[in-house]
Amino acid sequence: MALDDTHDPKRKSWIETANAAGAEFPLQNLPLGVFRRKGSGEAPRGGVAIGDRILDLASAHRARLLSGDAAQAAEAASGPTLNRLMGMGNGASRALRRALSEALGAEAASRRSAVEPHLVAMRDAEMTLPCEIGDFSDFFSSIHHATNAGRSLRPDNPLAANFKYIPVAYHSRASSVVADGAPVRRPHGQIKPGSSEAPIHSACRALDCEVELGFYIGAGNALGTSIPIDQAEDRIFGFCLLNDWSARDIQGWESTPLGPFLGKSFCTTVSPWIVTLAAMEPFRCADYARAAGDPAPLPYLTAKTEGGFDIAIEALISTPKQRQAGGTPMRFALCNARNGYWTVAQMVTHHTVNGCNLRPGDLFGTGTLSGPEAGTLGCLLEITKRGSEAMTLANGEERRWLEDGDEITFRARAEKPGHVGIGFGQCGGRIEPATA
Amino acid sequence: MALDDTHDPKRKSWIETANAAGAEFPLQNLPLGVFRRKGSGEAPRGGVAIGDRILDLASAHRARLLSGDAAQAAEAASGPTLNRLMGMGNGASRALRRALSEALGAEAASRRSAVEPHLVAMRDAEMTLPCEIGDFSDFFSSIHHATNAGRSLRPDNPLAANFKYIPVAYHSRASSVVADGAPVRRPHGQIKPGSSEAPIHSACRALDCEVELGFYIGAGNALGTSIPIDQAEDRIFGFCLLNDWSARDIQGWESTPLGPFLGKSFCTTVSPWIVTLAAMEPFRCADYARAAGDPAPLPYLTAKTEGGFDIAIEALISTPKQRQAGGTPMRFALCNARNGYWTVAQMVTHHTVNGCNLRPGDLFGTGTLSGPEAGTLGCLLEITKRGSEAMTLANGEERRWLEDGDEITFRARAEKPGHVGIGFGQCGGRIEPATA
Repeated sequence: MALDDTHDPKRKSWIETANAAGAEFPLQNLPLGVFRRKGSGEAPRGGVAIGDRILDLASAHRARLLSGDAAQAAEAASGPTLNRLMGMGNGASRALRRALSEALGAEAASRRSAVEPHLVAMRDAEMTLPCEIGDFSDFFSSIHHATNAGRSLRPDNPLAANFKYIPVAYHSRASSVVADGAPVRRPHGQIKPGSSEAPIHSACRALDCEVELGFYIGAGNALGTSIPIDQAEDRIFGFCLLNDWSARDIQGWESTPLGPFLGKSFCTTVSPWIVTLAAMEPFRCADYARAAGDPAPLPYLTAKTEGGFDIAIEALISTPKQRQAGGTPMRFALCNARNGYWTVAQMVTHHTVNGCNLRPGDLFGTGTLSGPEAGTLGCLLEITKRGSEAMTLANGEERRWLEDGDEITFRARAEKPGHVGIGFGQCGGRIEPATA
Repeated sequence: MALDDTHDPKRKSWIETANAAGAEFPLQNLPLGVFRRKGSGEAPRGGVAIGDRILDLASAHRARLLSGDAAQAAEAASGPTLNRLMGMGNGASRALRRALSEALGAEAASRRSAVEPHLVAMRDAEMTLPCEIGDFSDFFSSIHHATNAGRSLRPDNPLAANFKYIPVAYHSRASSVVADGAPVRRPHGQIKPGSSEAPIHSACRALDCEVELGFYIGAGNALGTSIPIDQAEDRIFGFCLLNDWSARDIQGWESTPLGPFLGKSFCTTVSPWIVTLAAMEPFRCADYARAAGDPAPLPYLTAKTEGGFDIAIEALISTPKQRQAGGTPMRFALCNARNGYWTVAQMVTHHTVNGCNLRPGDLFGTGTLSGPEAGTLGCLLEITKRGSEAMTLANGEERRWLEDGDEITFRARAEKPGHVGIGFGQCGGRIEPATA
């Protein structure tokens, strides 16, 4: 889609916090989520983030604040999930974006009194998952991550032969996807310590996180049909941050021959705001630069336009010791969505090449978005070389794997000269001890 | 649970077709499903199979045919999915079973006029999926299948080191699970023929089926908790037949390192009737006999009682040529649920050992239930040694893999001396040509 007035960097909102330098939710973002007032017992409903406020789509719709397609979109977002809005296709969410961009724009300050009753302060709200996730598919799109992860298993040939042809993925678990802030219980499972002849049942000793971008499907496809590459992006409703928590010891022992299972399914955390594809439009970038000699994608994966997005994602850790000392969370990784060898459009098209049906609200993960350099590696497996070298934090503490009480938070920002940068909110969770 | 009056082999129904020798749905079975009258445009609702009829639970409930817990169960089964009934726990479905066993029993012939208006002839009904499937997990529980499948990849060491310790599984795709009779479109995908340097985009050339038992979760567990082995069976609502259609060429090329993905996700067929755990009770058998020297299961997987079930599952093929000649479908495999090295209870407990939450309606597959001998192998990969030796059908045709127009049907029966045997209905689908 083309840029339009909703992307105009000169436009501001009459909600002043949306105009602050570095604001996550300026007028140009308008991400969607599901919220309710904290402790209210209210039914969750759709909302749009603007500055430090949430526009309540259900009450705005009831008050007839919107009309036409935007009103239909708001109505579809008035329930406890956004699936119905997602299923309407991106035309619906774009109509809503245009209408809200206008109603919240500084030039519409006269509408302030009509809109203000529908605003809720973010600090008074709690966010839930934005939709029912039918299926969750997790990809493996960074060549750096794939190479680093493969190195300890296949030192001479770390990258599998299919990597440069296939956006490799596995089905993951939908039931255990949680929103920012939910506790992450250290899992039990079967592990096989190197010193042991047989496996043991134990709490995980190699707990890890993975920096990923997530994205939700909007309009899907019928079983038996495929989504051509040049229609693929339009089936993406929007983006979030995703932490694919991983129990490396459980994963290592269980994964032959069918892949990761319980090493992943204990928890996946997502940021609750969905940044729409429309909001991401200014932050397109070239696809990952394939090395000379790399094969071209097969025709069904060859797009006419570039499909990369420049989104910087930082991973922060806060430890019990650091919190006690009153310190601030410490950054240990800075990844970027453009590190994906495969684009989100290629993931969508590949997923449906066999006729597999995608449904509104299906979640995709990009896989760990590691870059080539130190500081850009998106999981401890890579940073500590599978636990063999400790990572030293800013406060002098060391980590090979995550410890109980550690809190991991991802934050992200898309920026480009001449555009208003946008944020993603946060994707965080604290490790709780394994059950006795 | 103990056997009760609902299992009494002397009891008959006033619906005569339920009493026929070899009937699939005698009074002792009473499986649940979701149906509507063919071409009626009616809302689908829960029903119970008895002989050649379906008792409409929605209309029976509206007419106050049932009372107490059974009425609550019928009410929960009156909508288009059985998820709500499943979530009530197996006490609810057992109460319904007891009430229906009584109402449909020969000794209750006086109730015939009250019940009969709620019966629909099976031939007039179409069945849908019985529930919304949140997540679908497919296991790998037959040691014969695991050994045969591993042989071509790891000839010297076909069985992975974890097999005898872990009920190995992978997440599969929930969106593409369909009920008996739905067409199965031959998938496209990336395949890498042996003669080719690079992969190609092609219709699948190695299409296969897999004979499995499926089972649905009833009451689930909260995220972060586990289901102890001695409570695991009670979380199983009931059983169905499952065909895990497989594109071996797509699967072979894509599966390193994260396991099967598009080689499976194009379609999975289930039989639409759910045979409850209560109905299966008489057909318990000893667990799979582990070989001398095999390790004992770890304590968390060690049950106090035997958890095997004796269910014979036959796989039939009908080909275009055979149908043209007016022949009947030809059996090419006879598997048994007792071929699982791991029990269904062990699968449930292992799945939750890491705190993964199961939800009502989640589907599990046992994996291909191959036995040790010729004739008991549950997929063409095994029967034809990965396509290297043709399988000769009863009419003289040969198959290495499935061809367009082939129809595969699974049927199953549990029998035991002194008990009335029960059937599962059918799980079938015909291969349609790949899209152009």
